[in-house]
Amino acid sequence: MLNILVVHGPNLNLLGKREKNIYGTTNLSTINSKIEKKAKSLKISVELFQSNHEGEIVDVIGKSEKRFNAIIINPAAYTHTSVAIRDAVSAISIPVIEVHLTNIYSREEFRQKSLISPVAIGAICGFGANSYILALEAAVDLCGKV
Amino acid sequence: MLNILVVHGPNLNLLGKREKNIYGTTNLSTINSKIEKKAKSLKISVELFQSNHEGEIVDVIGKSEKRFNAIIINPAAYTHTSVAIRDAVSAISIPVIEVHLTNIYSREEFRQKSLISPVAIGAICGFGANSYILALEAAVDLCGKV
Amino acid sequence: MLNILVVHGPNLNLLGKREKNIYGTTNLSTINSKIEKKAKSLKISVELFQSNHEGEIVDVIGKSEKRFNAIIINPAAYTHTSVAIRDAVSAISIPVIEVHLTNIYSREEFRQKSLISPVAIGAICGFGANSYILALEAAVDLCGKV
Amino acid sequence: MLNILVVHGPNLNLLGKREKNIYGTTNLSTINSKIEKKAKSLKISVELFQSNHEGEIVDVIGKSEKRFNAIIINPAAYTHTSVAIRDAVSAISIPVIEVHLTNIYSREEFRQKSLISPVAIGAICGFGANSYILALEAAVDLCGKV
Amino acid sequence: MLNILVVHGPNLNLLGKREKNIYGTTNLSTINSKIEKKAKSLKISVELFQSNHEGEIVDVIGKSEKRFNAIIINPAAYTHTSVAIRDAVSAISIPVIEVHLTNIYSREEFRQKSLISPVAIGAICGFGANSYILALEAAVDLCGKV
Amino acid sequence: MLNILVVHGPNLNLLGKREKNIYGTTNLSTINSKIEKKAKSLKISVELFQSNHEGEIVDVIGKSEKRFNAIIINPAAYTHTSVAIRDAVSAISIPVIEVHLTNIYSREEFRQKSLISPVAIGAICGFGANSYILALEAAVDLCGKV
Amino acid sequence: MLNILVVHGPNLNLLGKREKNIYGTTNLSTINSKIEKKAKSLKISVELFQSNHEGEIVDVIGKSEKRFNAIIINPAAYTHTSVAIRDAVSAISIPVIEVHLTNIYSREEFRQKSLISPVAIGAICGFGANSYILALEAAVDLCGKV
Amino acid sequence: MLNILVVHGPNLNLLGKREKNIYGTTNLSTINSKIEKKAKSLKISVELFQSNHEGEIVDVIGKSEKRFNAIIINPAAYTHTSVAIRDAVSAISIPVIEVHLTNIYSREEFRQKSLISPVAIGAICGFGANSYILALEAAVDLCGKV
Amino acid sequence: MLNILVVHGPNLNLLGKREKNIYGTTNLSTINSKIEKKAKSLKISVELFQSNHEGEIVDVIGKSEKRFNAIIINPAAYTHTSVAIRDAVSAISIPVIEVHLTNIYSREEFRQKSLISPVAIGAICGFGANSYILALEAAVDLCGKV
Amino acid sequence: MLNILVVHGPNLNLLGKREKNIYGTTNLSTINSKIEKKAKSLKISVELFQSNHEGEIVDVIGKSEKRFNAIIINPAAYTHTSVAIRDAVSAISIPVIEVHLTNIYSREEFRQKSLISPVAIGAICGFGANSYILALEAAVDLCGKV
Amino acid sequence: MLNILVVHGPNLNLLGKREKNIYGTTNLSTINSKIEKKAKSLKISVELFQSNHEGEIVDVIGKSEKRFNAIIINPAAYTHTSVAIRDAVSAISIPVIEVHLTNIYSREEFRQKSLISPVAIGAICGFGANSYILALEAAVDLCGKV
Amino acid sequence: MLNILVVHGPNLNLLGKREKNIYGTTNLSTINSKIEKKAKSLKISVELFQSNHEGEIVDVIGKSEKRFNAIIINPAAYTHTSVAIRDAVSAISIPVIEVHLTNIYSREEFRQKSLISPVAIGAICGFGANSYILALEAAVDLCGKV
Repeated sequence: MLNILVVHGPNLNLLGKREKNIYGTTNLSTINSKIEKKAKSLKISVELFQSNHEGEIVDVIGKSEKRFNAIIINPAAYTHTSVAIRDAVSAISIPVIEVHLTNIYSREEFRQKSLISPVAIGAICGFGANSYILALEAAVDLCGKV
Repeated sequence: MLNILVVHGPNLNLLGKREKNIYGTTNLSTINSKIEKKAKSLKISVELFQSNHEGEIVDVIGKSEKRFNAIIINPAAYTHTSVAIRDAVSAISIPVIEVHLTNIYSREEFRQKSLISPVAIGAICGFGANSYILALEAAVDLCGKV
Repeated sequence: MLNILVVHGPNLNLLGKREKNIYGTTNLSTINSKIEKKAKSLKISVELFQSNHEGEIVDVIGKSEKRFNAIIINPAAYTHTSVAIRDAVSAISIPVIEVHLTNIYSREEFRQKSLISPVAIGAICGFGANSYILALEAAVDLCGKV
Repeated sequence: MLNILVVHGPNLNLLGKREKNIYGTTNLSTINSKIEKKAKSLKISVELFQSNHEGEIVDVIGKSEKRFNAIIINPAAYTHTSVAIRDAVSAISIPVIEVHLTNIYSREEFRQKSLISPVAIGAICGFGANSYILALEAAVDLCGKV
Repeated sequence: MLNILVVHGPNLNLLGKREKNIYGTTNLSTINSKIEKKAKSLKISVELFQSNHEGEIVDVIGKSEKRFNAIIINPAAYTHTSVAIRDAVSAISIPVIEVHLTNIYSREEFRQKSLISPVAIGAICGFGANSYILALEAAVDLCGKV
Repeated sequence: MLNILVVHGPNLNLLGKREKNIYGTTNLSTINSKIEKKAKSLKISVELFQSNHEGEIVDVIGKSEKRFNAIIINPAAYTHTSVAIRDAVSAISIPVIEVHLTNIYSREEFRQKSLISPVAIGAICGFGANSYILALEAAVDLCGKV
Repeated sequence: MLNILVVHGPNLNLLGKREKNIYGTTNLSTINSKIEKKAKSLKISVELFQSNHEGEIVDVIGKSEKRFNAIIINPAAYTHTSVAIRDAVSAISIPVIEVHLTNIYSREEFRQKSLISPVAIGAICGFGANSYILALEAAVDLCGKV
Repeated sequence: MLNILVVHGPNLNLLGKREKNIYGTTNLSTINSKIEKKAKSLKISVELFQSNHEGEIVDVIGKSEKRFNAIIINPAAYTHTSVAIRDAVSAISIPVIEVHLTNIYSREEFRQKSLISPVAIGAICGFGANSYILALEAAVDLCGKV
Repeated sequence: MLNILVVHGPNLNLLGKREKNIYGTTNLSTINSKIEKKAKSLKISVELFQSNHEGEIVDVIGKSEKRFNAIIINPAAYTHTSVAIRDAVSAISIPVIEVHLTNIYSREEFRQKSLISPVAIGAICGFGANSYILALEAAVDLCGKV
Repeated sequence: MLNILVVHGPNLNLLGKREKNIYGTTNLSTINSKIEKKAKSLKISVELFQSNHEGEIVDVIGKSEKRFNAIIINPAAYTHTSVAIRDAVSAISIPVIEVHLTNIYSREEFRQKSLISPVAIGAICGFGANSYILALEAAVDLCGKV
Repeated sequence: MLNILVVHGPNLNLLGKREKNIYGTTNLSTINSKIEKKAKSLKISVELFQSNHEGEIVDVIGKSEKRFNAIIINPAAYTHTSVAIRDAVSAISIPVIEVHLTNIYSREEFRQKSLISPVAIGAICGFGANSYILALEAAVDLCGKV
Repeated sequence: MLNILVVHGPNLNLLGKREKNIYGTTNLSTINSKIEKKAKSLKISVELFQSNHEGEIVDVIGKSEKRFNAIIINPAAYTHTSVAIRDAVSAISIPVIEVHLTNIYSREEFRQKSLISPVAIGAICGFGANSYILALEAAVDLCGKV
């Protein structure tokens, strides 16, 4: 059975109360439930991880290869500043899919540059919680191809 | 029944023979078959359109509102140069989803800037033909919400 | 009798329904009526042309010299991207006046650079439909001077 | 009766002798006569003001609201350097129209950026003295709409 | 007794009526009263000066050293354009504190660069009229240290 | 009673021995004593926090809303690199004041751009330990207004 | 017998009357005659194509592989703006030679960047009609090598 | 007898007390004495003018043509910000020589760009008061040539 | 006996399996053995530290002065993004040597800018594990000089 | 009889052994033979010159006018850095043709800017040794026209 | 007796025949005569040196300190490209004065940046041969001060 | 026995007297002695070469392959300007190590960009004469590996 790691980046623990006009009112546990429900229907297992610490995300990615078949990551603020996470993604050989709740390309200039995108397999952004759901489908499709 | 317009931009008619190391060996009619098969399974109808002419793509988008519930567009080369297509997307009120076969963010500098992304609902790139399939699911989800 | 060509660029056919907060609720046929009425009062004739195709606009300008005394052009999205229209304007010897419904200098960064302005006689922007009316007067004045 | 303030920026007092190949041979008093004649024909009153001092132009704009219905300003050199005039224009609620004798977009790079345009209602440039005349018509049209 | 010069830059005379959504409804005389009241409570004297003229502000700073122990300046629009005021601040040896009513770093790009900050002792911005009050305290603290 | 969180960013634990020509000889515990003394005189309570870890600062800000009325933060090096701290500041609704010991605008180019300023209420820099004292007064004033 | 496609881009139909100081007085049919004469002497056949439409040029290049051994293209204004033509050139496997009548590197800044050059075999510019003649020789040489 | 206007820009009235490490200890009246002494020895007359007001400098240049044969100007801070003074210099037909006490090219980045140099006849910088003396000789030489 | 701290930055724990074409097949424990062997031969002691956490690296540098005579640091990804590590290096008075396994100047644009280099004593890059060995020699030489 | 100078820039003496994947295996003497053979067939004489010294190339160009009718130059590395060679080309009145073995526009960013192109008559690049042969034909054509 | 070295950079040997509209018709030997005549009148000796070779100019400057009291250099094209000449100027302790025949600030963009100016004592440009004469006077004045 | 070429770039002949605060008081012959002594201890031979002429350095590198096993080069000023030396380094197949006496990354902006680094094996900077000694060790290590 496929095992997918889902990584939520900094401040995503505040979802639902944080800038609702941008991020909506759904909180992280609701999104996690949707992910788990979808995983069930796809007959795969998922592990959910959230951290505000760049180093912890680097740690987790670096150790992921043995236990997981793919990673879905919403790097949030670290999207735009973390070469360390980028290098961790490059360092492993399982596919990594980047997701964003919002369409980062319709936001501030500095949010329109992702350091992660060039080393991810692909990216999905702008569909709210559904970005994760689509990424799960993409991950299953990618793993099926290998 | 939902009706979705799928727009293929310039040179996508050459898929399968064009730069296979980048775009793969699948040709456009195979992709179109996959889209139609998926549409059937989602119980929606799709209309497929390809053009190398910026003006024709602008025409088609401008006339789309009455007949379609959403647009999926792979603007190809026009992604990076067409303010006219961007304005056409802004001008209509149905959701528009941008897709790319390749991960444009791991390619040449000039391909990493999309003029369309800021006005699309969301974007999906890097999953080959599957980018379109995921976009169909996203479109159904979006239309269901309205 | 002076004969003036008025060229409307891409997406102007959608006026009245497109982004009303920016472009207002007047549609293109209303603007055209105002132009024709003003032409009548100025005792000149006008020919009205709209196209979403850069190539068609280049064609029309290239053939304009024999039939027209001046051109009024709202290049819309092509304002910012079309060297071809710029070259067509440079190639002819009758005066060309650039107009815009909105004040392009108070909009997005990329809309604040016109490729056409440097080769036009002059520019009028920000007065809505009245931008065309003022341009008609300017054209009459210019032709009278020659 | 509408009352319009016309502001001439720095060095416009030298018109007619200054760089004639660029600005022509008409001097400022001739332009002022044309403006006054046009005002008469439009049945409005105008007040004419010229200064080489940025601070005086800021003063005059700041005090304009009570006495005038609109301002027509040719900020000349201050177009490209004065945030103070820009802020003065923003600070008042009557419409301000920017005019230029020459087409600033076909001149040196630094003249192609106007700090005033983004806060003006609209701009007219390139028609020589006629830029002012067209602006008077635009002002009347704008004031009629309020 | 300490004597502090407070300099208000261009358009601050319009406070209270100017762009109230940005600058609030307090006018300059109310701010001046607050400053004077605070000065009294700190047992210092203040002199208040407002000008829209860059040259006058340069004059006043250049003559300040003999009569004043410190300067508090809100350079307003000249913050972003005046090397002359910057040089005047550098030329004198009493401490100069820069204040702004608004947080200039959350406004337009061009307002985020201050030519004055690099030569001031320190800067206080974003607290409305209270920016001046805090600056008075800072000035007293600085002068006490000398 | 108001409760204010004071956050000291990376390397501020080294104050007093670090680059004394820039940061002076006062160490962090002396600064903290000054802050506590001032808090007492203002009849408010403060909580002091220092960390070299971006993630810990994000954590602390994310949890601050329930216990604190305002935050005073000296983001130090993270001022210029942390979108994560910026997003944490945006995510909460209590006011955040940015302080710096030195005048960052008279230092290296890269220190002159703060990622935090645009989302803070205001900023105070250049007054050494007094920057914090002034920020406490500003915080009390802001909380009094709500 | 070798078969070469010669593509003339936008506004080249106006040659001879367009900006004669830059492009000279030779018109397109004279150039075409020279090309045909040279082709005859080289014992190859040529097909001549001119269009002002980016899309038509993309169409023609996309269909060229079966019928032609090489392409000589003067992309004119599209040199600087068309990723679509660039992609079409990349998509085919026959050699493409870029030509220009004028030395584009001694003209306006924006004309000094060719989007086509990086994907062409080589480029020849500045020799007027002779640029095409030299390109024919180059094409014959290249095809002889394969 | 030749009559030369010498214009001293903003803050030059503070020479001798201002930033002595950069500008030295000579004050403006000493420099003026040196200029007058040199003028005498060259048998020309000079008129000396200092102002901190950009507008006054523009006024003075605009009126200079009738009374003076050449201008020597040290635009000081306005060197880097005043398009108005640049335009005044362009507007007149007598030669204008730019001087600086310091070598502006070895100072801050923003001081290394002169808006005046492109329209002056020539420039002399870095020789302290002697810059003016050399400029007087240059002016006499230039006027002798006409 | 000299005591040297060797700091390995993020993802260096993955050496040997990470992007072998770039970083080679040697893993971190092999490099550490080489360092320890060299230290022995130089009769100095070394302490080895690896972390993926920026904050931990800042902590370790901040505490290093008492126990170590010099630091050798390979900041890896943080080379390009960490002002906090830069400030920590500036804050201490023992010499810091920057090393890189690869020649960062022959890699991606963003890897060619080191934030650490300007505050390090010197840098050694491109020699694989030997970069550390050379740095040990350099450190011994530097400490011998003090 | 026409006499043409052919100048080979730095490192071209290493052709055939240098970066063969880029420059091919033909060495300079083979290219020179081809040039001489072609010259013979065109009934012109050529003089061949190679130098790694910028100054020598400047010398040779400066002395060329009397003895030669045209210059063909491959400035190699100096293409991108030598204003001195550019000025030498400008200083003479015989036509200068720039050639490159490779298509410099498909190589590194810094190789895509030629300082020589703007002052040459025309340029030919990307055809290997044939670039020189085509340039000989172009030179004959140009000289024939004078 | 003072001994001054005058260095003429590349292509100055072509003066009088080179681009006469820019550099005039005076040739180098005429300029040298004027320099020698002026030197005589100032009772100093001069040595004149011209080279097209950057390395020779570096050699000459490096050896100048023992024999000369000052250097006057017109670096011509090397003004804009030679860090080596800049470093040579920095390396010596006698004063170096930069001269230019033309006003380099009114020419092409790339000519407006001098690498030499920041390390020269001062600069004189735009006065033709007189630039050297003024520099001789400046040199005498500078040497007199030491 | 390994034979290493050591190349010293421009102005290094002036070491010891040139800008001692930056480069120290050691002169080139002392450095050369240290290099020779170290070579002896490593049982390799070295050849020492210094030139101020870019062309001579290109010549020497181009001829180095047959006689030398590696090159150590301090390109000095040519580090930042010489594509010709860069190309020479690329053209040969023996390893090239770049050294600098100073830490170029803590100096002026323009010195922080090396054109040579991307084509060298590795770089060592900031250790004074010891930079060369470390490079010798690195060269021996590299040659041992081949």
